[in-house]
Amino acid sequence: MPRYAAMTKAELETELAAVRARYDEMVARGLALNMARGKPSAAQLELSLPLLDVLDAEADLTAEDGTDCRNYGVLDGIPEAKRLMATLLDDEPDSVIVLGNASLTAMYDALVRLMLFGTQGSAPWGQLPAVKWLCPVPGYDRHFTICEALGIEMIPVPMDEHGPDMDEVERLAGADDAVKGIWCVPKYSNPTGVTYSDEVVRRLASMACAAPDFRIFWDNAYAVHHFSAEAAEQDRVLDIAAACAAAGNPERYLKFGSTSKITFPGAGVAAVAASPANVAEIKRHMNAQAIGHDKLNQLRHARFLDEGRGLASHMAAHGALMGPKFELVCRRLDEELGEAGIATWTNPRGGYFVSFEGPAGTARRIVALAKEAGVTMTGAGATWPYGDDPNDSNIRIAPSLPPLEELDAAMDVFCCCVKRAALEKMLAD
Amino acid sequence: MPRYAAMTKAELETELAAVRARYDEMVARGLALNMARGKPSAAQLELSLPLLDVLDAEADLTAEDGTDCRNYGVLDGIPEAKRLMATLLDDEPDSVIVLGNASLTAMYDALVRLMLFGTQGSAPWGQLPAVKWLCPVPGYDRHFTICEALGIEMIPVPMDEHGPDMDEVERLAGADDAVKGIWCVPKYSNPTGVTYSDEVVRRLASMACAAPDFRIFWDNAYAVHHFSAEAAEQDRVLDIAAACAAAGNPERYLKFGSTSKITFPGAGVAAVAASPANVAEIKRHMNAQAIGHDKLNQLRHARFLDEGRGLASHMAAHGALMGPKFELVCRRLDEELGEAGIATWTNPRGGYFVSFEGPAGTARRIVALAKEAGVTMTGAGATWPYGDDPNDSNIRIAPSLPPLEELDAAMDVFCCCVKRAALEKMLAD
Repeated sequence: MPRYAAMTKAELETELAAVRARYDEMVARGLALNMARGKPSAAQLELSLPLLDVLDAEADLTAEDGTDCRNYGVLDGIPEAKRLMATLLDDEPDSVIVLGNASLTAMYDALVRLMLFGTQGSAPWGQLPAVKWLCPVPGYDRHFTICEALGIEMIPVPMDEHGPDMDEVERLAGADDAVKGIWCVPKYSNPTGVTYSDEVVRRLASMACAAPDFRIFWDNAYAVHHFSAEAAEQDRVLDIAAACAAAGNPERYLKFGSTSKITFPGAGVAAVAASPANVAEIKRHMNAQAIGHDKLNQLRHARFLDEGRGLASHMAAHGALMGPKFELVCRRLDEELGEAGIATWTNPRGGYFVSFEGPAGTARRIVALAKEAGVTMTGAGATWPYGDDPNDSNIRIAPSLPPLEELDAAMDVFCCCVKRAALEKMLAD
Repeated sequence: MPRYAAMTKAELETELAAVRARYDEMVARGLALNMARGKPSAAQLELSLPLLDVLDAEADLTAEDGTDCRNYGVLDGIPEAKRLMATLLDDEPDSVIVLGNASLTAMYDALVRLMLFGTQGSAPWGQLPAVKWLCPVPGYDRHFTICEALGIEMIPVPMDEHGPDMDEVERLAGADDAVKGIWCVPKYSNPTGVTYSDEVVRRLASMACAAPDFRIFWDNAYAVHHFSAEAAEQDRVLDIAAACAAAGNPERYLKFGSTSKITFPGAGVAAVAASPANVAEIKRHMNAQAIGHDKLNQLRHARFLDEGRGLASHMAAHGALMGPKFELVCRRLDEELGEAGIATWTNPRGGYFVSFEGPAGTARRIVALAKEAGVTMTGAGATWPYGDDPNDSNIRIAPSLPPLEELDAAMDVFCCCVKRAALEKMLAD
């Protein structure tokens, strides 16, 4: 199969007829496969079943500081859970506030506080004529949903292989004091899999911002989510806290993370890490919202993951399940689409996603075709603010949930849909 | 001992000298007792230890609708948890949204949503020149903290033995459209122990409100927290949902509750119940804040409490531990202070508190004296908005945490402090 771009119209038509026939066969198989969300597979969830045996009726339910984890109290987390989450967030236990079960809630609540109260003496953002936010694209749809819900205007900034386009970030943040922050998934980014370079981190930390209360929302969702257990095969990212402190902007960042994709997404532990002044401010506001989060679940997680020391081996077991799925996805894309020259995709060393770029104007069509053939993908456009991918070209592939054989079948369908949409587009243009 | 009011000055001075001597003896004992917060005792927490064995690594972790409770999803709660919380909230499962571990967070978040978004088409409250809130007093300090944090102006309304003074509530809610709502703890109220009469509930549901989006925050924190297992010895409260629907104001209420004082305060399950329109609105906003709450903890609680059918027997065991403590508190108050005629107190049939009214201008002094003698009480003034009890007379007694013998010692100290403060005040006036 030559490159589609090199084909004659007649050759394209012949190829389209073959692809359509193949597509109809697939529809007839009545598949029901799902690659829509970054959900861990059943095999991954089983890795954490022993978590449920950590605390039973005979267990010692007292934290090391004497706290009865069954009762009220401890707004910011028990010490052993702070150490666990500090390991995950590459920070010190004193900088950590342990929260409920979701970093998404932590980020929403943090942004709500900024809207209602401002920060470090600044005016409540909700009282300003406009609040704008930098959104590296493609990005995480639930970040964008938070901004949209709070009426924050989103400005897309392109991602490259080093992270967000920093020339553009510096230009936008420097020029307009309504630009109050940026979403960052610094390691194995959602969905590109890109890990921010040291230079990107340093520029984010040190750039001149028109808004003195500019905030980097550092969603380190895939901090330890490597496919390989070999350090040489793992990405690393510079610590934003250290970079901000070194640049003289110690309050600029808020780090978020959780154990959602480490233990159980439905029942994990989340945390925020921040500067001493920001930790104090968050605790002051949180004091009206909560007496304390679920300390038994904190204790359960701290013991199961040996306060962080158990993370590497536990994540190696996840990686052993995830790696082959990503290998399969990229191999199938290469086999099916490599020669046609109609698409590009990322090949990350960790995280949960492959970012796929098809021909302009085909993403919605591809996702619709796949849906009709029984394969649910993340909605086209989801990786852009307001669901609006101006090129209609980006699709997020989430290979974690299906078992390998189902993933193989789903990739069959997906690649066939890509070819069909591309050929239809070429012949229509 | 006669009534203090009938004593001569010389008699009062003799009595004060005796009380002071007794107080000094108590200080010398170096006590460290705590009646500050409504925390369950260790014996109460032990009642729920089997909760920790409900889900182990061998357990079926699938909800009845097929949901894998370990994984992402289910914004509003698994069906079995909805049934449990519907039983607790005296409502239907479809009206329930199951949340995280704290009704306090549920109430804070609900008020934040009203500030940011308004409700059912009304303007965001945060954009109004003023938002005011009716606060029955004495009341729950954490309710007041939420209002204060959000800049909502609190208006105290007196409580009587039937609930809030409804003439006053109707006058205030009817006259001013900035008055947007009211805090209610309708059963075994915090701290008075009063249960709202049917007439109070009906008047709350049907009164004319200047604000069309007036909201009753119905914090049914002690819905099943009776001291006696005998129905005749238990308070009951009319269902606010039914009353509001009957009055043609179906959106007026939001019900809140949790298992905090049923299982583990640090690790329970909370919920909100509301009208269909309000449930839909809350879910729409929550969709930006959360993917789902801790479904394993929901499953654990639903099974442990047999989806609500196990509540009565479990709460009877709590009541058997709580009843004797309240009996002791009221008996000691009666023995020590009954004849002096200087104070009144409530004698509830459930809940967590005794509300104590000392002589005007003595509450702060009593609490300070008790503290000095090693007994920590709830801060004086805490039961009033802004911590400002204009009479300086109300003190919340929280007898649940200390074992009986410690409670006895604490009541010794407390009564001595009351007498000393009262005598000092009478002699100074």
